[in-house]
Amino acid sequence: MAVDRIVTLLTDFGDRDVYVGVIKGAIATVNPQLQVIDLTHQIPPQNLLAARFALLNAYPYFPLQTVHVAVVDPGVGSTRRSIAVEFPQGYVVCPDNGLCSGILNFNSAIAAVELTNSKYWRVPNPSYTFHGRDIFAPVGAHLASGVALQELGQEIDVASLVKIDLPPLEIDRHQITGCIQYIDHFGNLITNIPGDLVQGKLWRAIANNITINSDKTYSNVPVGENITLVGSHGWVEIAVNGGSSQKKLQLGVGDRVKIEIKS
Amino acid sequence: MAVDRIVTLLTDFGDRDVYVGVIKGAIATVNPQLQVIDLTHQIPPQNLLAARFALLNAYPYFPLQTVHVAVVDPGVGSTRRSIAVEFPQGYVVCPDNGLCSGILNFNSAIAAVELTNSKYWRVPNPSYTFHGRDIFAPVGAHLASGVALQELGQEIDVASLVKIDLPPLEIDRHQITGCIQYIDHFGNLITNIPGDLVQGKLWRAIANNITINSDKTYSNVPVGENITLVGSHGWVEIAVNGGSSQKKLQLGVGDRVKIEIKS
Amino acid sequence: MAVDRIVTLLTDFGDRDVYVGVIKGAIATVNPQLQVIDLTHQIPPQNLLAARFALLNAYPYFPLQTVHVAVVDPGVGSTRRSIAVEFPQGYVVCPDNGLCSGILNFNSAIAAVELTNSKYWRVPNPSYTFHGRDIFAPVGAHLASGVALQELGQEIDVASLVKIDLPPLEIDRHQITGCIQYIDHFGNLITNIPGDLVQGKLWRAIANNITINSDKTYSNVPVGENITLVGSHGWVEIAVNGGSSQKKLQLGVGDRVKIEIKS
Repeated sequence: MAVDRIVTLLTDFGDRDVYVGVIKGAIATVNPQLQVIDLTHQIPPQNLLAARFALLNAYPYFPLQTVHVAVVDPGVGSTRRSIAVEFPQGYVVCPDNGLCSGILNFNSAIAAVELTNSKYWRVPNPSYTFHGRDIFAPVGAHLASGVALQELGQEIDVASLVKIDLPPLEIDRHQITGCIQYIDHFGNLITNIPGDLVQGKLWRAIANNITINSDKTYSNVPVGENITLVGSHGWVEIAVNGGSSQKKLQLGVGDRVKIEIKS
Repeated sequence: MAVDRIVTLLTDFGDRDVYVGVIKGAIATVNPQLQVIDLTHQIPPQNLLAARFALLNAYPYFPLQTVHVAVVDPGVGSTRRSIAVEFPQGYVVCPDNGLCSGILNFNSAIAAVELTNSKYWRVPNPSYTFHGRDIFAPVGAHLASGVALQELGQEIDVASLVKIDLPPLEIDRHQITGCIQYIDHFGNLITNIPGDLVQGKLWRAIANNITINSDKTYSNVPVGENITLVGSHGWVEIAVNGGSSQKKLQLGVGDRVKIEIKS
Repeated sequence: MAVDRIVTLLTDFGDRDVYVGVIKGAIATVNPQLQVIDLTHQIPPQNLLAARFALLNAYPYFPLQTVHVAVVDPGVGSTRRSIAVEFPQGYVVCPDNGLCSGILNFNSAIAAVELTNSKYWRVPNPSYTFHGRDIFAPVGAHLASGVALQELGQEIDVASLVKIDLPPLEIDRHQITGCIQYIDHFGNLITNIPGDLVQGKLWRAIANNITINSDKTYSNVPVGENITLVGSHGWVEIAVNGGSSQKKLQLGVGDRVKIEIKS
């Protein structure tokens, strides 16, 4: 029995052009009843690490069996594989370029296929430059409409999926060194240090030679003050109450952050 | 009987991150059938007056019983209350920081509750920094699915809701002084002077020492010319046919505008 | 029998204000079951050629009978007509200012009406400045809910619809001269030369005195290299693998591009 699941979209297509609208047209052409939710289309062009982070952080908050269609695709038209991967909480349909490797880090994949069955594409001869419209979106729509993963193509070894990652954390007894992996719209600096490592403890962060004390929420410090806390997605984050930490500390993605755990 | 109402979203989360997508995931987890409409997510960070204005102007154009979830929340994690308010035309679910006080100015609230019933939250222990995801969105989804307002928490006195406002108008017999309360995407300068006060009359606006005559619509004056008119949301507005009044007149939010009524 | 079709929206309203949300409220007030898809709201203010291009390129990818509501409307409140046009694949509801003339170039219109029947407007006396909310959106919602085109107003001659266009191509035996008609979010330069004219051939593009060879997809040339190809919407396009051709070649909309066909 076909069950309508939710489809999400994550791309670097921006919102100026009709590319995202056209992808939704391709989905509606397969099944006009599907509900489509935008994660974001403002991934910096071809930035796989930002896309991997966004997908990882959105994945836990959707209903079971949601289908996440993610298209950041510098290798479109090359030999990179097109894939669909089943995870415990939902599916990801994307190019095999590391996009879903953030989720893979924290969850075992149940199964993966290469999207070789052109029956589920928009057209048998897809364009060379827009697989989002011609392959990923229609395949995602079919999957969300109840087509089995194994129908979509050749099963592949989960271990063969392309992985991308940040440099590993350096973890000492009272000290963790990581880096800023993402800066959000508010200018909050989100590190790659999982909040679990500091949960229930006090700590301080040292970044750009400035020392910042931990607290629970922005409004616990005066407006304009630095704070480090476990952010809403579960990472250690550096912020400013009522302001942009990016501007105040002049830090960027990749810059190092050291955490000293006090208790 | 559960009835599916529409949910709208108004935030300052922008569109670069997955925050809005995650909020929609939280709503879909409560009820995947709900229709969600974005008002805007581009409220300037933590700008309560802009958010209050946006909500006030969108509210009249939605079906009865629409649930407006509004999250501009500089006090998240502090002691500010989380509320849901019933108005004649629909509901607002938001922090108690003045967000719905624009609607309150023009409509009597029917009832209000503090969101104390954690049964309708995403999790019993919400994050300290993202009540949009953990409280406001799931509560809004339950309300839109037919849960009664009174189920959501402790009833509170409507008179106790936080109000924020612009300086009051100075109204003389033939003259009204107000200020620019909002500048839209086209650069139109929208004042806080209700169109009712000039309806059916001719008037002129004086702003930045420039005198501008009233007319009915942009195209009644030559391209590039100033015009003052009652805009589509019902406020006196200053515009330029085919251009940006903000750029031409070099005015900003809060700047004073004087209206002289001629007939 | 009323059938729910899809409604798309194309405007220059941007995403900062609640204008688009309000339009969706007006649609939901007519029929809360309709599915609404955004094409884009980032058309540069009042740029009819960009809107015409966007609509033309999105039109083929939607289900039959989709209703496209397009509002880029410098003449709002003037005597320009409001229209709905039936095409083989769907409907367009818009001001009669050339917005649908791109589709008209490639498809015969089946019928057209002027939107004179105020029964399908939001209110009998629409605002002078926001026909998107008061006329186009509610009319589009009624059309998508099954109201017949001829119900919406007076039938008009398809030949009378306003047309706008770029300068015509100069086509020689081995040479085509056109211009850049659109630059997308990635900085790809999209010409007005249909891909059909070069399909299956090798060619080179000459733009700003630089000669660029054709290939099938971005990743066939080294990162940072120029390429000319038939883009995903079917036009000859100039791009850079992994970069912005707009920045690299310093070209803009309207600049000339010459194509020399080699075989």
